[in-house]
Amino acid sequence: MGKQKVYLDKMSHFFQIHNLLLRQALAECLGTLILVMFGCGAVAQLVLSGGSHGMFLTVNFAFGFAATLGILVCGQVSGGHLNPAVTFALCLLGRERWKKFPMYFLFQTIGAFFGAAIIFGMYYDALWDRPGSFNVTGPNATANIFATYPGRHLTIVNGFFDQIIGTAALIVCILAIVDPYNNPIPQGLEAFTVGFVVLVIGLSMGFNSGYAVNPARDIGPRIFTAIAGWGGGVFSARQGWFLVPLFAPFLGTIIGVIIYQLMVGFHIEGEFREKNKREEENVRLTNVNSNNSKEETKEAH
Amino acid sequence: MGKQKVYLDKMSHFFQIHNLLLRQALAECLGTLILVMFGCGAVAQLVLSGGSHGMFLTVNFAFGFAATLGILVCGQVSGGHLNPAVTFALCLLGRERWKKFPMYFLFQTIGAFFGAAIIFGMYYDALWDRPGSFNVTGPNATANIFATYPGRHLTIVNGFFDQIIGTAALIVCILAIVDPYNNPIPQGLEAFTVGFVVLVIGLSMGFNSGYAVNPARDIGPRIFTAIAGWGGGVFSARQGWFLVPLFAPFLGTIIGVIIYQLMVGFHIEGEFREKNKREEENVRLTNVNSNNSKEETKEAH
Amino acid sequence: MGKQKVYLDKMSHFFQIHNLLLRQALAECLGTLILVMFGCGAVAQLVLSGGSHGMFLTVNFAFGFAATLGILVCGQVSGGHLNPAVTFALCLLGRERWKKFPMYFLFQTIGAFFGAAIIFGMYYDALWDRPGSFNVTGPNATANIFATYPGRHLTIVNGFFDQIIGTAALIVCILAIVDPYNNPIPQGLEAFTVGFVVLVIGLSMGFNSGYAVNPARDIGPRIFTAIAGWGGGVFSARQGWFLVPLFAPFLGTIIGVIIYQLMVGFHIEGEFREKNKREEENVRLTNVNSNNSKEETKEAH
Amino acid sequence: MGKQKVYLDKMSHFFQIHNLLLRQALAECLGTLILVMFGCGAVAQLVLSGGSHGMFLTVNFAFGFAATLGILVCGQVSGGHLNPAVTFALCLLGRERWKKFPMYFLFQTIGAFFGAAIIFGMYYDALWDRPGSFNVTGPNATANIFATYPGRHLTIVNGFFDQIIGTAALIVCILAIVDPYNNPIPQGLEAFTVGFVVLVIGLSMGFNSGYAVNPARDIGPRIFTAIAGWGGGVFSARQGWFLVPLFAPFLGTIIGVIIYQLMVGFHIEGEFREKNKREEENVRLTNVNSNNSKEETKEAH
Repeated sequence: MGKQKVYLDKMSHFFQIHNLLLRQALAECLGTLILVMFGCGAVAQLVLSGGSHGMFLTVNFAFGFAATLGILVCGQVSGGHLNPAVTFALCLLGRERWKKFPMYFLFQTIGAFFGAAIIFGMYYDALWDRPGSFNVTGPNATANIFATYPGRHLTIVNGFFDQIIGTAALIVCILAIVDPYNNPIPQGLEAFTVGFVVLVIGLSMGFNSGYAVNPARDIGPRIFTAIAGWGGGVFSARQGWFLVPLFAPFLGTIIGVIIYQLMVGFHIEGEFREKNKREEENVRLTNVNSNNSKEETKEAH
Repeated sequence: MGKQKVYLDKMSHFFQIHNLLLRQALAECLGTLILVMFGCGAVAQLVLSGGSHGMFLTVNFAFGFAATLGILVCGQVSGGHLNPAVTFALCLLGRERWKKFPMYFLFQTIGAFFGAAIIFGMYYDALWDRPGSFNVTGPNATANIFATYPGRHLTIVNGFFDQIIGTAALIVCILAIVDPYNNPIPQGLEAFTVGFVVLVIGLSMGFNSGYAVNPARDIGPRIFTAIAGWGGGVFSARQGWFLVPLFAPFLGTIIGVIIYQLMVGFHIEGEFREKNKREEENVRLTNVNSNNSKEETKEAH
Repeated sequence: MGKQKVYLDKMSHFFQIHNLLLRQALAECLGTLILVMFGCGAVAQLVLSGGSHGMFLTVNFAFGFAATLGILVCGQVSGGHLNPAVTFALCLLGRERWKKFPMYFLFQTIGAFFGAAIIFGMYYDALWDRPGSFNVTGPNATANIFATYPGRHLTIVNGFFDQIIGTAALIVCILAIVDPYNNPIPQGLEAFTVGFVVLVIGLSMGFNSGYAVNPARDIGPRIFTAIAGWGGGVFSARQGWFLVPLFAPFLGTIIGVIIYQLMVGFHIEGEFREKNKREEENVRLTNVNSNNSKEETKEAH
Repeated sequence: MGKQKVYLDKMSHFFQIHNLLLRQALAECLGTLILVMFGCGAVAQLVLSGGSHGMFLTVNFAFGFAATLGILVCGQVSGGHLNPAVTFALCLLGRERWKKFPMYFLFQTIGAFFGAAIIFGMYYDALWDRPGSFNVTGPNATANIFATYPGRHLTIVNGFFDQIIGTAALIVCILAIVDPYNNPIPQGLEAFTVGFVVLVIGLSMGFNSGYAVNPARDIGPRIFTAIAGWGGGVFSARQGWFLVPLFAPFLGTIIGVIIYQLMVGFHIEGEFREKNKREEENVRLTNVNSNNSKEETKEAH
């Protein structure tokens, strides 16, 4: 036991990374890996079992609670964004520095890539067992296990709008949850609440194109599928649909930030600021008064 | 970064609303918008996907957790009622001022209106893709995505009773959760618990007419559908059904308040009052005693 | 507003019940009403909608979260047993006085009776809309909405065993949750955890006869159905099955109490007792020492 | 009442086990019994009802929340591992002593054995009611109620990989939850969070072979089925599949520990260590300074 502790301590020293940003990006990478591994795993289970081991609800649960678990794993280190749109929102509001954004985006995408790779390995036999498994479109398509594709009824314009609304809804809820002036929930339950947000978005906004609302979650697995055997079709499908979940979420983020700040955020912040100011003034007034009275006392002497 | 902070601060000052009631009503509006957006979104997903991306259970989950999220977003500002029936109950019990009631009702309805509008925009293509989509009744009806309509087996009388029971059940549970003398749950978990209440009502009282139990959630989207293309039929359907979820919930609220207060509320409050009184008396007695003993000591001198 | 407060205060004084046991029994009554109203409501929704608005999982969720809500409503007043078997277990362990048992049993049964009555009223039209709705057995039977009946494969002996196991499992989990020496969860989350217990029992032990595991929840609604139109068949069905969920749970309670106490309870309690004893001894030793040293100091003088 | 207390106290003294390790192993046994009883009970309900009283989602919920309840029952005594792989991970990291491992493994297996036996007894009639119920393989097989068997599409190699990934995912999440330097969730909610982990693994990694990810949960019930009537086929099925869930999880544990420590654990621990060191240095420096200043003061005298 004594020897084991010494050995563990040595390892801990040897492998420790001292650059904070790299450490955070690595944690983000693991968190997003968990999100995509469990989330896309549930889609794989649904698609490959032909519905016997899953349904759309199980995918919603999986993505929701996977978000919770991903945040729990890395939250203390990196904040647990798991989503470039969330990083973007916090940068917009000045709560994270802008230099974090590209670094997080990169490592979130890498995490999503490897999350997809793990699910690919796990369900390798099941994928080959299925006729036409490496199709990007059609009734036997499996590319949709990893990245999102629009439903047949969806135009690109409506799809763009869909991703904007979904991400705006996500951002409004997340901002309320992590707003330092609003803080509606007990410390430590943020991860669970964000999981519920992702669950509810899946329950109500998943029919059009599968609610990516996360550029990293979509592009990482998409790159993986392009390499793993589905080919370039994953990018060319539906006139370059892949650009929609890559760019629309950032527009949605801006809209979400504006809506939350205009309708709740600025007012709570203002109220807080005014309360602080009043207290300061009270302190000043008290000081003035006490100074006055001191002087009076002096004069009285 | 420095410049960004200055700019954000300026915006915060510029957009801050100083009227408290307006600020609260605005928050209520956003909260109800979130409730209806996610809730009706789940109905839309169920109806438009023909069951492949939802079932009645997903609608129940969506409304439940949407209530949770709506309350989290606005609860710190406005109390997070999201429902005129809840505002009414708190006014009845003297915990909110009556002048809040019309203001909240109005803004909750506006929020529900826009929540429906967002879902309409999001699923615009899917709605047009469906034959006969703008029907109010019949097998392809989609008006029930936004407002509630009674099942074919339901008479108006039973429907009225249904809305009364549903709202009474909601109010009994909410009163227990927010009762300052009962407070059964840790601070900050009220929103989650109310979400469970809404979920359970949907699981057990949703078959008759879709458990509106909320005048704003029903009339706001109904007005929207009348404008957006379904026409006046949304009001005339089933001999003016729309009046039932508009008025019955207030009757249910009164019954719920009476039941809770008679069976639990008054007794807990009374117990609390008596405990306080005993303590006061103890203090008085102690004072009297100490006064007596003081006098005795004086006399002894 | 002022007048309203005065009026509310007067009402509060007028209706306050001063007998503690009656007050507790009344709260138990409301709690069990909520449990049965939501739970049986979900069964009604499943049966009457023919599966379109429910499935067995929704019944499990409804009973689980209904237990949570029932406990929240009355827990601060009466402990939130909602189940004579739970009251019996706490009496067995000396944590509640035996005189509570008959009183709680009675009022829990009354609550369950009225919970069933409310659901009957709510789904009155739907019940009449269904051919052969007031059958106790057969494919169109609806008596199983309110009370439990065994599956066709079940013998009375296995059914008895089924109720014993179910209740023992319930009691083991509840004892762990409320054990004052074990207390594994934060204050205020007991109600949620008990809800999960009820949910899990439904998910895994509901196929045989619908997991009553609660004499009051079964006999109250059964009496109601006998009165409301299903007739004496609800008692005579399956050779007096109604006796099984009425008596077997108490046997299960005894077994559950024994298992928990032998495998966890006694040891935790003992550990606690020993720790206390050691501390007392330390205190005594310290006193002896300090007395000795005092005497030594005295002698030194 | 007085007599009852005395009697309970006597029993408590009589039955108390004083050996800590045995007490812990006994608690582990009860916890694993609960896990397997509820988990396998849900599979039994799904299989025996032919889908009317369950689906794969209900099995996922049951195993998840059963893990929660099992941990709650025994967590305060034994840590609530319920899984030799978890015990193994904590031993690897030096947080539990190695001598616990075989003892826990044994009692977890015994608990799983009896959990399966209880479900066998509970659903005895339902098992006999089904044609060909004691088959290990084939469409009417019921051996899969108790132990796991691979899907037809799965090769042994992929199955081995499946168990490694599943267990690694489980261990990464559990390590994050119980890491003393990371602690992302409020005290007392660990059991719920682990339940969500088990739920999510079932939602996304259950299609291949039913996500044992727990040697005790698989081998205990398998031994029971061999005895109870299914015979030696439970071991010989699919070329000795039973060895996969018995050994692969430990390999997965090693990989999970390495991934978590390399990507998050070592860095958090290091950060903590450095903070402590800095504080110690500050204290030393302050002491040196104060010593210096003392000496200076002395010299100044």
